[in-house]
Amino acid sequence: MSGSVYGKNFTISTWGESHGKALGVVIDGCPAGIELCEEDIQKDLDLRKPGSNKFGTKRKESDTVHILSGVFEGKTTGTPISLVVYNEDHHSADYGNIAYTYRPGHADYTFDAKYGFRDYRGGGRSSGRETLCRVAAGAVAKKILSELGISFITYSKEIAGFSTDKIPSSKEEIFADPLYMADAEVSSLAQKRLTECIENCDSAGGIVECRIKGVMAGIGETVFDKLDSSLAKAIFSIGAVKGFEIGSGFEVALSKGSENNDNFFADENGIVSKKTNNAGGILGGMSDGDEIVFRAAFKPTPSIFKSQETVTKDGTNTTLEIHGRHDPIIVPRAVIVVEAMAAITLVDLIFSNMFARMDKIKDFYLG
Amino acid sequence: MSGSVYGKNFTISTWGESHGKALGVVIDGCPAGIELCEEDIQKDLDLRKPGSNKFGTKRKESDTVHILSGVFEGKTTGTPISLVVYNEDHHSADYGNIAYTYRPGHADYTFDAKYGFRDYRGGGRSSGRETLCRVAAGAVAKKILSELGISFITYSKEIAGFSTDKIPSSKEEIFADPLYMADAEVSSLAQKRLTECIENCDSAGGIVECRIKGVMAGIGETVFDKLDSSLAKAIFSIGAVKGFEIGSGFEVALSKGSENNDNFFADENGIVSKKTNNAGGILGGMSDGDEIVFRAAFKPTPSIFKSQETVTKDGTNTTLEIHGRHDPIIVPRAVIVVEAMAAITLVDLIFSNMFARMDKIKDFYLG
Amino acid sequence: MSGSVYGKNFTISTWGESHGKALGVVIDGCPAGIELCEEDIQKDLDLRKPGSNKFGTKRKESDTVHILSGVFEGKTTGTPISLVVYNEDHHSADYGNIAYTYRPGHADYTFDAKYGFRDYRGGGRSSGRETLCRVAAGAVAKKILSELGISFITYSKEIAGFSTDKIPSSKEEIFADPLYMADAEVSSLAQKRLTECIENCDSAGGIVECRIKGVMAGIGETVFDKLDSSLAKAIFSIGAVKGFEIGSGFEVALSKGSENNDNFFADENGIVSKKTNNAGGILGGMSDGDEIVFRAAFKPTPSIFKSQETVTKDGTNTTLEIHGRHDPIIVPRAVIVVEAMAAITLVDLIFSNMFARMDKIKDFYLG
Amino acid sequence: MSGSVYGKNFTISTWGESHGKALGVVIDGCPAGIELCEEDIQKDLDLRKPGSNKFGTKRKESDTVHILSGVFEGKTTGTPISLVVYNEDHHSADYGNIAYTYRPGHADYTFDAKYGFRDYRGGGRSSGRETLCRVAAGAVAKKILSELGISFITYSKEIAGFSTDKIPSSKEEIFADPLYMADAEVSSLAQKRLTECIENCDSAGGIVECRIKGVMAGIGETVFDKLDSSLAKAIFSIGAVKGFEIGSGFEVALSKGSENNDNFFADENGIVSKKTNNAGGILGGMSDGDEIVFRAAFKPTPSIFKSQETVTKDGTNTTLEIHGRHDPIIVPRAVIVVEAMAAITLVDLIFSNMFARMDKIKDFYLG
Repeated sequence: MSGSVYGKNFTISTWGESHGKALGVVIDGCPAGIELCEEDIQKDLDLRKPGSNKFGTKRKESDTVHILSGVFEGKTTGTPISLVVYNEDHHSADYGNIAYTYRPGHADYTFDAKYGFRDYRGGGRSSGRETLCRVAAGAVAKKILSELGISFITYSKEIAGFSTDKIPSSKEEIFADPLYMADAEVSSLAQKRLTECIENCDSAGGIVECRIKGVMAGIGETVFDKLDSSLAKAIFSIGAVKGFEIGSGFEVALSKGSENNDNFFADENGIVSKKTNNAGGILGGMSDGDEIVFRAAFKPTPSIFKSQETVTKDGTNTTLEIHGRHDPIIVPRAVIVVEAMAAITLVDLIFSNMFARMDKIKDFYLG
Repeated sequence: MSGSVYGKNFTISTWGESHGKALGVVIDGCPAGIELCEEDIQKDLDLRKPGSNKFGTKRKESDTVHILSGVFEGKTTGTPISLVVYNEDHHSADYGNIAYTYRPGHADYTFDAKYGFRDYRGGGRSSGRETLCRVAAGAVAKKILSELGISFITYSKEIAGFSTDKIPSSKEEIFADPLYMADAEVSSLAQKRLTECIENCDSAGGIVECRIKGVMAGIGETVFDKLDSSLAKAIFSIGAVKGFEIGSGFEVALSKGSENNDNFFADENGIVSKKTNNAGGILGGMSDGDEIVFRAAFKPTPSIFKSQETVTKDGTNTTLEIHGRHDPIIVPRAVIVVEAMAAITLVDLIFSNMFARMDKIKDFYLG
Repeated sequence: MSGSVYGKNFTISTWGESHGKALGVVIDGCPAGIELCEEDIQKDLDLRKPGSNKFGTKRKESDTVHILSGVFEGKTTGTPISLVVYNEDHHSADYGNIAYTYRPGHADYTFDAKYGFRDYRGGGRSSGRETLCRVAAGAVAKKILSELGISFITYSKEIAGFSTDKIPSSKEEIFADPLYMADAEVSSLAQKRLTECIENCDSAGGIVECRIKGVMAGIGETVFDKLDSSLAKAIFSIGAVKGFEIGSGFEVALSKGSENNDNFFADENGIVSKKTNNAGGILGGMSDGDEIVFRAAFKPTPSIFKSQETVTKDGTNTTLEIHGRHDPIIVPRAVIVVEAMAAITLVDLIFSNMFARMDKIKDFYLG
Repeated sequence: MSGSVYGKNFTISTWGESHGKALGVVIDGCPAGIELCEEDIQKDLDLRKPGSNKFGTKRKESDTVHILSGVFEGKTTGTPISLVVYNEDHHSADYGNIAYTYRPGHADYTFDAKYGFRDYRGGGRSSGRETLCRVAAGAVAKKILSELGISFITYSKEIAGFSTDKIPSSKEEIFADPLYMADAEVSSLAQKRLTECIENCDSAGGIVECRIKGVMAGIGETVFDKLDSSLAKAIFSIGAVKGFEIGSGFEVALSKGSENNDNFFADENGIVSKKTNNAGGILGGMSDGDEIVFRAAFKPTPSIFKSQETVTKDGTNTTLEIHGRHDPIIVPRAVIVVEAMAAITLVDLIFSNMFARMDKIKDFYLG
């Protein structure tokens, strides 16, 4: 197997288990000359950190990132950037009862099926904690993109059935809300529902939306490595994602061509735009210059405190009550993970696009 | 760019334009010793062939496949298999009016943005015709999978808003229906709606569902190269796909953990199964031994005969009327494409899984 | 297996057997906008074509290349370029005696060990004929490089023990000589020796040298994907190569640091050069702006007409007399193959270098 | 750039600079179920550790490895293994004089040419210290290979012109000698010569030979990813390597086919072997079951204490005297690095070979 390395030219390699010594990521392919310090990364990590409010797991971790290589005198050098977060709060005892019993909705059974045994402490490699490496690498990717004028708005579009069409106008607005939603009223209803979930030892699902501005037309490859197919993989690689859609998404199944096609128009300078954006900013796998819009559906947290029927490692039927520290909702903490994966994917495809045309290569090489 | 190569260990490299001399695919990594002849591939190509019924484009092509390498005395040799389909019916004149005008919903504009110019004949590389290479490679992948007892049921789940929960029991049942649907009554309503679409110079969307049986537990890698994320990319790389979901898909956003978790149980032999399959056969990115179930939403054919507002290559506003030969619906012909991409992806991940455990490697090497 | 695809961003996928229907290559990642026609490729193919003089195999093939995709109105479009050469002259009968007997020095035995059986006709996939695909792809790579002012001098440095330090001044000079050597006198001695080889039913080895001018400093990655390590793989992937060296090569083992280090100096404009070139134009895995110089040692053609001891497929000791059409020397026909592989490798690393620096990426994206 | 990731299915990602906080490697694709502890890795690291004798640099580092992930209860879990060595002894002051002056024979100039600036402390990423990550990963690879019965003999074949044909019979024999040579007499002559080198502020080159036993026939892919081409890249990616050869190597240029071909023979059980091993255990890019034999030529340490002519970063001619701690010879410490890179490469190709044949895949999947 070789599934913890991602990206072709901007390549990240993540490692670490929930209750191991540390987690980390190596970024290979970050260009030289970008100002980078730990705080650039820490601020994103803090957005997914556990324990920030009553809907997050009570595990207490500072999740402090250390840059171990690839930065010299405050700038990236072009060599691999190694980022590490040391684990602090291992309450392995909390997880003892799951060493031999498969938790429904988790990877315990499939891990054993694949590898013969597993690091059962806190979900091991399949823990949501693995996503902090993605967030750390995503923060670096976003530094690159911000230099190109590309920006993100990613937020909780729907939680526990409460949804709104209001689009947040800034990151500040998003992260001011405890659920990272854009509409205080809807958020407050969702919070009420989540409190009920906690009381009922249950959990809820939701939807994250990501909108990306400033991507020039032509990014993405035309057949397999499309911008949309690449984003689909990136986002679906986040645990708990069960659905992904771009632009009008699943609604296209119900629309007509005359409704779904986005007409083009040109302004007085001949600059081409689309009148609508059902395409979500992507045509034929390539960015069309419009805002890129996609959504991901997250399942309810599988760790619930209700008693569940399941089996043990040796094939005996049993019931399981999970204890410990778990979010009743994955969505808010997943917001920054979605953004990170999109950013990493976009950087990779922007690099690939640099050698699409001979005239541009000549400019680069000879100029 | 380098986006027409797909797969890590079972690698396909596709080529060809809608109105060029030929289209083809090179398969690198097909194991030796599989019986393979052109008919094995042709029967799948025939399922996506244009002109088979009144809802398919009227372009007449025999789409005859030729095996140019990699097979000796009726068996694969382990060396690259080159498959070619020569183009016959080029009516380039049909497409002359789109050389300078961007068709809404198509890749014309983004192609020019990326490469500076494009082969405009019939959509060039972004034509749906490109998918015949995927179907050809998929037929080879399915030969491998069928030796492992893995089988597919892929069909039109929804067309133009008409949907049913009936699951087809066989491929014969699917392909007997003109729309590759499983329910004759629903299909007949959908056909009526499509006839209206044609009369209105419009088109419709729909949903393809794919169900895969016989996949052992543990296939797929745990972090980035998950089985679901890999399928997401595979399916989203097919033109016109705007949404993808596994198992309960987008519905998980509305469910609770206690509803969505699939409980495990063991039979008298200790064999582990799940009581439900909301997970769609995948847990933690790995197959769980259950049926794999996913769906893809296809947008309506963008080539409609209605007049549309758009711009020319030099940035002038204009209107466009597309003529020629186009399906009012993509879905039925996409059925076999979806199956092909899923098969190719699955073979690749089955190969990767072969070196997951040291004891299995030892058996292979020493045994 | 997955070993017929080469290159990361400029990716070639080759296919075809010596006596199959055809051989070909798909190039994925060729930039758009390069003028390309079949003659550009044919002229290189003609340099490795069999039958051109008495030291080449007598097999008669026109080796005519066809461009099947990726070129429109005389220019590359950025989509995959499919190149095919159809086989004409199959004398399979010539090879009948080797179906069950392993030829010494050939891949017959290892092919069977790996795959269980093989296409034995003319060496199948392991035939030298496979290299025509490399030459075809190399011709395209050299079109790219020539636009960047990069040029090659590749020639037979040593044949059958006859060697000279004279460096050819042009391609014309090289290809005017029947052995592609730079010194007529030395060539004539080598030719005499080869004639003796033919009379003795034997064969000879030699050395190819390649010199590349115009490569800017900084091409190649610093750790694994060095320019020299990448060239080493590229050249060693050509059948019959048993040694590879850069610059002073194996002689460095005998030199001192004070002799082997190339001192730097600056001209009046501050342009940095080296006083000597023991490094062969590569320092720390990156081009240093100097001429790149490397050599490859080729073993004698293993197909000799002398009787040889060997075994059959079922493990019986026997003797084998090979008949048919074989070169007594591989080197001259390998010259253009070496050049092709170097060109393909260089293009790939030039692409990778385009995103080494943030300022350059910004220029590209925003400029 | 993306050059610090190596391997397709057994993938290593290295990071770290000579004088940064730490160096490390992430191994993705190590099978589950291998017993692994830090001592398994430490013993190889100790063989390349600086300061072990008078011919090694005087830098004092304990080079203690830490396993941060991927091992649970003493066994590999199949998830990424993160190995870290923290730097202790930074005497950055030693290197201050090279911040603005390019050292001949080093990557200083090319680093600046590529990235615009560099971490100049101790050679930064291009330091020989980078190789400890390869050694650490190599130790893990060798654990895998030893379970398959594959073993290595790697040693200093030639140092400063002193060479011998004696092949060591054990690792103990090799590492008992201060120069890791197999012949005490020759070693003692070489040591005397190195002492002269030190006195003369100069350095010397040499040759490492690696011999691998127990590799089954058929490992390696037939075209680009040959066993020999893959080893060539692996070994040439080690700094200071300027030549690489397999089996008879460069001598083949002078031999005849009748001499160079290795005749096959079968024993009474029909087991096929070769009478000689000019091929170095590789035919047509695949292992032939015989011992694999290759050699690499290392240039003299470029850091010499003699005054050298060079230029500054701003293009001024100057002279440079390097001070600090440097080996007069790279070869002995490179022995374990060569072995590591060969082991990593071999594991990767053994994995690729597992899906070469359909019957083997079936056994794996269904058995």
